[in-house]
Amino acid sequence: MCVPGTREAVLKQLSRRDFLKATAALMAGAMLPAPVVAASASRSEEVELAGVIGQRFKRAVDLTHVITEDFPTYFGTQNLDIETLFTFDPNGFNMYRWHLVEHTGTHMDAPFHFSPDGMSADQLPLSMLIVPLVVVDIREKAEENPDAQLTLEDLRRWERRHGRIPKDACMAMNSGWSDKVNTPEFRNADSNGVMHFPGFHVEAVEFLLEERRVNGIAVDTLSLDYGPSADFATHYRWLPTNRWGMEAVANLDALPPRGATLIVGSPKIAGCTGGISRLIALVPGGNGDD
Amino acid sequence: MCVPGTREAVLKQLSRRDFLKATAALMAGAMLPAPVVAASASRSEEVELAGVIGQRFKRAVDLTHVITEDFPTYFGTQNLDIETLFTFDPNGFNMYRWHLVEHTGTHMDAPFHFSPDGMSADQLPLSMLIVPLVVVDIREKAEENPDAQLTLEDLRRWERRHGRIPKDACMAMNSGWSDKVNTPEFRNADSNGVMHFPGFHVEAVEFLLEERRVNGIAVDTLSLDYGPSADFATHYRWLPTNRWGMEAVANLDALPPRGATLIVGSPKIAGCTGGISRLIALVPGGNGDD
Repeated sequence: MCVPGTREAVLKQLSRRDFLKATAALMAGAMLPAPVVAASASRSEEVELAGVIGQRFKRAVDLTHVITEDFPTYFGTQNLDIETLFTFDPNGFNMYRWHLVEHTGTHMDAPFHFSPDGMSADQLPLSMLIVPLVVVDIREKAEENPDAQLTLEDLRRWERRHGRIPKDACMAMNSGWSDKVNTPEFRNADSNGVMHFPGFHVEAVEFLLEERRVNGIAVDTLSLDYGPSADFATHYRWLPTNRWGMEAVANLDALPPRGATLIVGSPKIAGCTGGISRLIALVPGGNGDD
Repeated sequence: MCVPGTREAVLKQLSRRDFLKATAALMAGAMLPAPVVAASASRSEEVELAGVIGQRFKRAVDLTHVITEDFPTYFGTQNLDIETLFTFDPNGFNMYRWHLVEHTGTHMDAPFHFSPDGMSADQLPLSMLIVPLVVVDIREKAEENPDAQLTLEDLRRWERRHGRIPKDACMAMNSGWSDKVNTPEFRNADSNGVMHFPGFHVEAVEFLLEERRVNGIAVDTLSLDYGPSADFATHYRWLPTNRWGMEAVANLDALPPRGATLIVGSPKIAGCTGGISRLIALVPGGNGDD
């Protein structure tokens, strides 16, 4: 089972210019974001939380879609085949093998996905996986224009209303696209195969990277870049700095603009470029403002 | 890529008697454990936490092993093949496909794994995935006898010291086996191919099921049943009641006997019998006692 035609399509999209842009981004220095707190943990698998979730939570929200074999994918290919190995009758138990492309369903883009030497998902320290979660709502403009992007101005407007974006946070884009997940409007490809859905503008991630130093960005669409992007500008600017992205996130409309804590259940397969992740948000009482 | 010889071995292990035992367990009624709280959530993906983690956490512990292609497996087969689809040079990005047997590495056994109609991992309500975590330390007897089992008496002793096992909790067995994960002693198979490692005694899970009504059990070994088990008695008594199990759990020695909260990052692949999971424990201050 391979991905017919995908390689060609991808090579066409990733022009030489974009390859150089990626290299330039790398030259800019793949600086590691500061850990949530000084690494006073006794082991790499352990982290002090004082600064992160020293608060009481009232509810939890699952930000994860159920993945089926026909879950929509960026390249339009089938990314999951479930092979039956054993069945209860006659074997006495059920067991399957997944043939699964990493970047399917609600999943992580690890730094290594778009860089030659960034961290793979299993290498991300736990301190980067338990972070403040903030949500920018661009549903109104996304409804008017499927090619809308989350811009620097959207972030400035959010900060005027909700205060400074917390350091080390995950900044999530709620474009309302999650509701389209089981319809053709999720990929929203036109007659030329060009997709139309929202994403992060490269200037917005520049700001989150240089001025706010957040750990991750999340989208409720199929890509960190908006659908028509031909150069993956946001992927190349963000991931090589050893930060992570999350795509096809669900239920963001159940969260307050700030105050929630995100637990990133990303995979620990050695060397993986990302992969299916269970995302659970813990929300304090009241309106969640902190 | 198939699992050579496995089917034969499995059919031999699962005798008719065991098949009937499983059926009997099902007839006994696959009762659902009570949710963490009354389902006052606005959606299935959301749950109120008041009774669960209305407390402050001081640290987090990752209970998840890194999975490599040669990670030890119950049947001794290679359960993971990583196929390279794209590489940064020349494609401009890295992307792989996993060929992965669900029950590999730190992973969940969903009720459906050992029952014809139990819940698959994606069907488990969020209320069953955010639970109090308690740990029984049987390292001393496991060091003397690799076939040691966590018994009802071990649970009674634990309760005399630490109080009643919390309803809806996950009860974890710390046998010290996690430290052996990269050695032959993890499977610890003898010259006849019989494995020797600790697990839960069926009487212990009977008690957790009938008297304490916990949601899950976890082991730091390759099976909920101890290595020499020929009948999967614990799997068949536990999973068909729509409770879950977790195998090959790491870092349990970093946790207090009680007081931690477990966030179960199990997969949401439709119909899956379980699968790779990211397990993160949140631990309150002090000694973690609640």
